[in-house]
Amino acid sequence: MDFDRYDRIRPIRWQDRRLSLLDQRKLPFVVEYLDCADSHAVAQAIRDLVVRGAPAIGISAAFGVVLAGEGIAAANGAQALVAMDPAIAELNASRPTAVNLMWAIARMRAALAAAGGDWREVIEREALAIEREDLAANRHMGRLGAELIAPGSGVLTHCNTGSLATAGFGTALGVIRAGVALERIDRVYASETRPWLQGARLTVWELLQDGIPATLIADAAGAHLMKTGAVQWLVVGADRICANGDTANKIGTYHHAIAARHHGVKVMVVAPSSTVDMATATGADIHIEERDGAELLAVAGTRTVAEGITAFNPVFDVTPAGLIDAIVTERGVILAPDAARMAAVFGTG
Amino acid sequence: MDFDRYDRIRPIRWQDRRLSLLDQRKLPFVVEYLDCADSHAVAQAIRDLVVRGAPAIGISAAFGVVLAGEGIAAANGAQALVAMDPAIAELNASRPTAVNLMWAIARMRAALAAAGGDWREVIEREALAIEREDLAANRHMGRLGAELIAPGSGVLTHCNTGSLATAGFGTALGVIRAGVALERIDRVYASETRPWLQGARLTVWELLQDGIPATLIADAAGAHLMKTGAVQWLVVGADRICANGDTANKIGTYHHAIAARHHGVKVMVVAPSSTVDMATATGADIHIEERDGAELLAVAGTRTVAEGITAFNPVFDVTPAGLIDAIVTERGVILAPDAARMAAVFGTG
Repeated sequence: MDFDRYDRIRPIRWQDRRLSLLDQRKLPFVVEYLDCADSHAVAQAIRDLVVRGAPAIGISAAFGVVLAGEGIAAANGAQALVAMDPAIAELNASRPTAVNLMWAIARMRAALAAAGGDWREVIEREALAIEREDLAANRHMGRLGAELIAPGSGVLTHCNTGSLATAGFGTALGVIRAGVALERIDRVYASETRPWLQGARLTVWELLQDGIPATLIADAAGAHLMKTGAVQWLVVGADRICANGDTANKIGTYHHAIAARHHGVKVMVVAPSSTVDMATATGADIHIEERDGAELLAVAGTRTVAEGITAFNPVFDVTPAGLIDAIVTERGVILAPDAARMAAVFGTG
Repeated sequence: MDFDRYDRIRPIRWQDRRLSLLDQRKLPFVVEYLDCADSHAVAQAIRDLVVRGAPAIGISAAFGVVLAGEGIAAANGAQALVAMDPAIAELNASRPTAVNLMWAIARMRAALAAAGGDWREVIEREALAIEREDLAANRHMGRLGAELIAPGSGVLTHCNTGSLATAGFGTALGVIRAGVALERIDRVYASETRPWLQGARLTVWELLQDGIPATLIADAAGAHLMKTGAVQWLVVGADRICANGDTANKIGTYHHAIAARHHGVKVMVVAPSSTVDMATATGADIHIEERDGAELLAVAGTRTVAEGITAFNPVFDVTPAGLIDAIVTERGVILAPDAARMAAVFGTG
C-alpha cells in the first residue's frame, strides 16, 4: 500500500542550510513559511508556536543546532560545542514538556561532541537523519496501529498529531491516514482542542488536504459521540510516555480516555520511541506546563471573557497506563502497557 | 442568611405590560435589554438565544403568551385561547429540548382556558406567578443543595445556570451562591462551554457581579482539575429530568459526570420541578437537539475552521441517573436517584 497520496504536507523545510517553518499560527487560512535566520529565531518560533507538536519541535530544534554553528570557528566538534552551548541551551529550554526536544538536542550534542574538523557537515547530516527517521517511523507506526483497528471502524482524535506535528504523515494521524488507506477506518472525528483549537484549525484542514473527510466536534461532545457508537477507537499522540506507560498529552486527552473506558472505546497512543522517557517512573513525576490564563479569555483574537476573571490553563494532562489499550512506537505495539511490558521494549532507562 | 447580596441580576423585565430581555448574546461586554413588542418577537428572541436557560425561556414564553393576548377581542379565556392559539404554538416550538418551555405554556393555556372576562389580568398574574415562584424555588434549592456540601469544598459548574438562566439567583449557580453565602464553598471553577461559551461569557461574569471569584477552565480540563483534588462537587443544571433520574443538560455535562465518577467527585443536578418530565421514562427517549455545525466553525464571529469541513454539533447530552449523586428540586433532595425515588416525590407522571 502506497501512503504517498495521504502524505502531502511538510511543515519543516531545510534547503541550502536555511530553515523555514510552516507558520501554524496562521493556518488554515494562510499557508506561509517563516524563515529562521539563526538559532535564536528557531527558539523564538518554538516558544511562539509557529511550530508545534513534539516531533516537529525536536526536528526544528535539531536544525536550530545546525544554525547555531554558523559563524563559529572551531577545530573540532568538542570545541564547537563549548562555543555553541548558550544557543543550544536556549533551544533546549524553548518548551518545557516535550521530551522529543530534549532527546533531539541530546542527540545533536552527542554527534557534535564526537565530530572532528567536519563537525558542520556532521551535525547537518544528524539533523537530516532525525527528520528522515521520523518520517519513516511514522509510516511504520501508521501501519502497526492501523492493523489493530477492525474494518468499518470510526475513530476520534484530539489535538493535532499529523504531518504538521512531525516531519510528515504524523503519529496518531499517521495511524488514521494508514487506517483509511488500508480501508480499516470509515469515519474520522476530531475534537477542536481548546484553547488553541489545533483540532479545528489544523487537524481537519490537514486531513482535507489529503482527501480524508473528518467531522469536527466540541471537546465536550466526546462522551456523547462515544455513546452513539460512532467511534471504536480514540487515537492520540503523546508528549511524554513514562516508564510505566502513563502518558502526558494535550489537555483533554485524559478526559476523553476516561469517557472511552466508560463506553468500551479503545485507546491507542501513537508516538515515536523518542517520546518514551524511561527515566520518569510515572505520570506523577511529570511537570505539567501551565500557560497564561489569558489564552482562555480570548478566542482567535477576540476577547470573550469579562475583565477581572482568572483562568486555570494547564496545557497537558496525564492519562494513566491503565486507561490505555495500546502504545504504538516504531519499535512495535505494546498492548495493555505497564512497567514490565515497557521495560521489555525500552530497557530500564 | 440573607441571599440578596448574591442576587443582583434580573434577565427578564416585565413593566407596564411590556417585556424586555437582557440580550445575552452581547454579554459580558454590553449590558442591554431588548424590548419585545409582541409574542412573535418573544419567540424570535428565544430562537436567537437573546434569552437562554430552561427556566428563563419558560418565563419569557409565559410573558409572550400575555403579549399574544394584545389586540384580541374575546368574551372569555376559552375564546381568547382559540384566537391566540397560533401565537402560543409558535412560542411552544421556539426551542425543542427545554421542558420548562412546554410546562410554562401548558400552565398559561390552563389558566387562560379557565378564565372569564378578566382573562387578560388572569394570564398576566399567572406569568408573574411563574416568575415569582421560580425565584423562590431557586433560593430554596440553593439552601438545600448547599447543605449537601462540606465546608471548605471546591465546585465545578458547566454552562450557565444562574440568574441569567432563571428569574434570578439560579439553579446550580444558586446552590453555588448559597454555598458561598453559607461558607461551604471556597473555590468555584466554571468550564467555558463550547460552542456558545456560556461559562466563559456568562457564568464567570455573573458571579463577578455578585463578588464571587471564579476560575475559568477549558471544557477539556475538567478531568485534570478533578485529579488535582481542587473540586469535591460537580454542580450542574438540567434541561429535562426523566422519570428514572436520567438528565439532559448542556453538551459536556455527561463528559464531566463520567470524569467526576472516576475521581470520586460527587455530581449534583439542580433544577425546578418543572424540569422533571415523568412522562419520559429514560434518557433514551429524549430527542437531543442538534444545531448547525457552523456554530463550531467560528468563535465569537471569527472563522477558525477551513472551508469544506463539516461538524457534529449536539447541544445536549444525557447523564444517566447512575452517575448522579443528588437531584435537588424545590420539593427536596433525591439522593442516588432512580425511578422509585423519583416516583416517591413526583408521582408517576
